[in-house]
Amino acid sequence: MALRSDLSGKACPIARSVDILGDPWVALILREVFGGNRRFDGIVAGTGAAESVVSSRLTMLVERGLLDKRPYDGQGRRRDEYVLTDAGADTLPILHALARWGNAHAPAPDPVRRMRVFCLTCGGEPPSADWCPTCGRALTVETTGWRKARTPEVLVRLAEV
Amino acid sequence: MALRSDLSGKACPIARSVDILGDPWVALILREVFGGNRRFDGIVAGTGAAESVVSSRLTMLVERGLLDKRPYDGQGRRRDEYVLTDAGADTLPILHALARWGNAHAPAPDPVRRMRVFCLTCGGEPPSADWCPTCGRALTVETTGWRKARTPEVLVRLAEV
Repeated sequence: MALRSDLSGKACPIARSVDILGDPWVALILREVFGGNRRFDGIVAGTGAAESVVSSRLTMLVERGLLDKRPYDGQGRRRDEYVLTDAGADTLPILHALARWGNAHAPAPDPVRRMRVFCLTCGGEPPSADWCPTCGRALTVETTGWRKARTPEVLVRLAEV
Repeated sequence: MALRSDLSGKACPIARSVDILGDPWVALILREVFGGNRRFDGIVAGTGAAESVVSSRLTMLVERGLLDKRPYDGQGRRRDEYVLTDAGADTLPILHALARWGNAHAPAPDPVRRMRVFCLTCGGEPPSADWCPTCGRALTVETTGWRKARTPEVLVRLAEV
């Protein structure tokens, strides 16, 4: 993205990763798409970001291979929705690690439900961003659900949305 | 930080987390401090960021409770170095998740060694950002080492630096 250094050629994989993902709106846009909110207007509403901000990030995420555009018929007009590629789906542990840190160390001003990540196979809440020790396997979009931080609690099965 | 929305009061823990951590330089500054590079000039050199960028992020990370300042004698002049608080140390899974994604999906233009995260207890390379299935316990600064993406490979034991 413009206005800062290009980190895409760095030897350090953290640097190459934050070249794409080191932006608050990118994380929130991916959160929306993981939760099945795939259309521009919905993503704007879900993130609270300005339209221009969402537009530039979606373009970048398509260019960098994390999202694909998929056409749909929007009231007779062809529009695009956004779906996760494999590379996009593999950002799930990053979102989970951010959620775990936020739950632990950045409490909301008023008590709210914690967002909880659970394993669809055993129903447990793993002590990890990406691994269920009970089942002995990785947490992926296929094996993971979210209980979102709302009242009433919203259950999201990532693979079904 | 200025010039964008305040996400610190959001119900979603991902939003509260990226309010602090959704910045490329913050991730790279934390990487440096995890690796034992705790002083201003060293962090500027290690990240490649402008001094003003490093200064503003260090101030924010101290204010938000991820780093503490610790005085040292810099050629007869009192200066501060930066050490991780418990909240700062708990960002380790986020850095690991970013590193895993970068290794997998953001290859460097020229082949370089992958940064590898290993468990100090079993010596293995866990398939997770924060959990060693072999040992059945979390990866923390005490139990984790990095093999950094350099030639020759640099071994970093996070708890010893």
